[in-house]
Amino acid sequence: MIYLDNASTTEPSENVKNAVVDAMNNFGNPSSMHRLGINAENIIKKAQGNIANIISSNPGNIFFTSGGTESNNTAILGYCRQNKKRGMHIITTTVEHPSVLAPFKMLENEGFIVTYLKTDNFGLIDLNEFEEALTNDTIFVSVMAVNNEIGTIMPIDKLKPIMKKKAPKAVLHVDAVQAYGKIPIKVKQWGIDMLSASGHKIHAIKGTGILYIADNINIFPLLNGGGQQKNIRSGTENVVGIAAFSKASEDVLKYNKDYVGQLRDYLKNGIEKNIDRIKINESKKETQAEHILNISFLGLRSEILLHSLEMHEIYVSTGSACSTNKPMPSHVLTSIGCSRDEIDSAIRFSLSENLSFDDMDAVVEALKKEVYNIRKYVRK
Amino acid sequence: MIYLDNASTTEPSENVKNAVVDAMNNFGNPSSMHRLGINAENIIKKAQGNIANIISSNPGNIFFTSGGTESNNTAILGYCRQNKKRGMHIITTTVEHPSVLAPFKMLENEGFIVTYLKTDNFGLIDLNEFEEALTNDTIFVSVMAVNNEIGTIMPIDKLKPIMKKKAPKAVLHVDAVQAYGKIPIKVKQWGIDMLSASGHKIHAIKGTGILYIADNINIFPLLNGGGQQKNIRSGTENVVGIAAFSKASEDVLKYNKDYVGQLRDYLKNGIEKNIDRIKINESKKETQAEHILNISFLGLRSEILLHSLEMHEIYVSTGSACSTNKPMPSHVLTSIGCSRDEIDSAIRFSLSENLSFDDMDAVVEALKKEVYNIRKYVRK
Repeated sequence: MIYLDNASTTEPSENVKNAVVDAMNNFGNPSSMHRLGINAENIIKKAQGNIANIISSNPGNIFFTSGGTESNNTAILGYCRQNKKRGMHIITTTVEHPSVLAPFKMLENEGFIVTYLKTDNFGLIDLNEFEEALTNDTIFVSVMAVNNEIGTIMPIDKLKPIMKKKAPKAVLHVDAVQAYGKIPIKVKQWGIDMLSASGHKIHAIKGTGILYIADNINIFPLLNGGGQQKNIRSGTENVVGIAAFSKASEDVLKYNKDYVGQLRDYLKNGIEKNIDRIKINESKKETQAEHILNISFLGLRSEILLHSLEMHEIYVSTGSACSTNKPMPSHVLTSIGCSRDEIDSAIRFSLSENLSFDDMDAVVEALKKEVYNIRKYVRK
Repeated sequence: MIYLDNASTTEPSENVKNAVVDAMNNFGNPSSMHRLGINAENIIKKAQGNIANIISSNPGNIFFTSGGTESNNTAILGYCRQNKKRGMHIITTTVEHPSVLAPFKMLENEGFIVTYLKTDNFGLIDLNEFEEALTNDTIFVSVMAVNNEIGTIMPIDKLKPIMKKKAPKAVLHVDAVQAYGKIPIKVKQWGIDMLSASGHKIHAIKGTGILYIADNINIFPLLNGGGQQKNIRSGTENVVGIAAFSKASEDVLKYNKDYVGQLRDYLKNGIEKNIDRIKINESKKETQAEHILNISFLGLRSEILLHSLEMHEIYVSTGSACSTNKPMPSHVLTSIGCSRDEIDSAIRFSLSENLSFDDMDAVVEALKKEVYNIRKYVRK
């Protein structure tokens, strides 16, 4: 099996599997007053430390959620609804994940004014446009750190200084689901007020995310009840998922982005040399995440190629597999100026360190055969 | 170890542990179009069937959440906000879990009129009072199936016929977190429109709940994004937690309530015979769940007894450990008419089939010693 869908989800590592089994034996409810409860609470505290370490925050600012979607919804809806008296203008980009765009759409329906920043062909927002969009009424900005479809690294470190000048009231949320552990993130230094991440993108398990919330940020909780996690997020904590996230965060410190970048270059070059009529949908070298390679194989439909590659036990994605399969053209590829043919024929290869150069050769071989056959025999 | 805190959380069974390991190997994203995605989706479909089987529903009406708290919040906030044009009166009881009471309080702040049904000394609501509370403006009723602190079984099968007469527009939500798998539940026959349950109360793992939603019930989703689960609950599904819930739901079919009831009677009799100045906080025989036994040891503080029992490796709870430790007198014990001393000295023993009669003997022995010592030496 050659798994190239790591931006959708990743295989749990052996360390994570062991951490999961350990955590199942440590089964107390973190809210229980007895020792089993305290043991479970200690797993959570350790996880807060391991996660804080990745984003240069304090452990106490890490809150656990059920995943990136809940983190994004909590940050966006929770902050804006709580603070709408301070202003009704909010800003995001056209290339965000649906779990950011959908809450923004809800807030628009509730009366907020939303600016959607467009991107250039490299998937980047323009910082001058950003500066112009900011007003004294702007209370909230959400920009993703790494795009999930093409891998653009956004200039999230440059945003807060501009905001301080033009919109001193505004807070900054970053969806770092594809960035966490893969690029440096310094929440305090960069003035990030809220940040979302998800365990299952770094070889932990699905169902656990985090929301970093800086001191002095007040949000309206999405989930209310027993008052767990300082009343920010009620509900018994998912100790097993948190233990998995914790272990994966320790391991991701050793993430070898240079190696993954070499794999990406090798695969890209192999495809470029061997297959004609392709278009590579990517950012500039210096703003391109190593683990995502998006290529359009013009003149075919990507679903057909996806299923052909499956016969070779090669697993890829057509667009973002984080959303259910809708027959909608990718909003990200649209934003970077792709034509309809380029969008319909786009395949996302998303890499991990578990892959080898031999795997990349096998992918190129399979592509040569399948792209040729589909273009020849299958009517578009 | 004698674990008597099963209403807080339970130890994952061996079957569940194996299911978790299997699911970690089946690591695809259920939204992925390739085979690994379909394999993950099949785990979810199988779980829907196993869970539907417990509550006599159709599998397609089962939605997965991060736990009982999210299920309750989604049902209450999601339904009432979506349907407020139909009426602004909603009903619940004074003995609900905080994850029901907190969303009701939020809705009250948003302009809804809430009736809180009181209970008698057995923890039961009065059906005549319920009937009187219903009006043509009532749109939503939430009553728990089994109380988490004292184990009262509410007459949830009797509610819908009364609602049909007096408040035909109103829908019925049942918090079945403590009831799921332990008492019979027939959602279709009893006219339940929404029902919440949680995996970690039946030997699955923390972080996975379900919300049953009947056909034709429209709710406003709490989590928005990729459109998973028919757009009712966006976010990548917690496949590992769902697999655990699924396996635990198969196993809970064999739940031996008679045996647990015998353990409860045995423990209760042992305590009654050996320790004076106690009060048993319970329901009538026919409306008492077998797995919960709440007893006040008058003249002492329950936290001190809890920690004394820990020395014997006996784990109990003082009240509901589902909420973080607040120095608030239990609202449930207050509702059934307990005095302050009875509340401050109450211990919840919550049982499982993993316990033996010998364990119960050991608990009585430990209680004899510790209650005597605390009453003698520790100032209240």
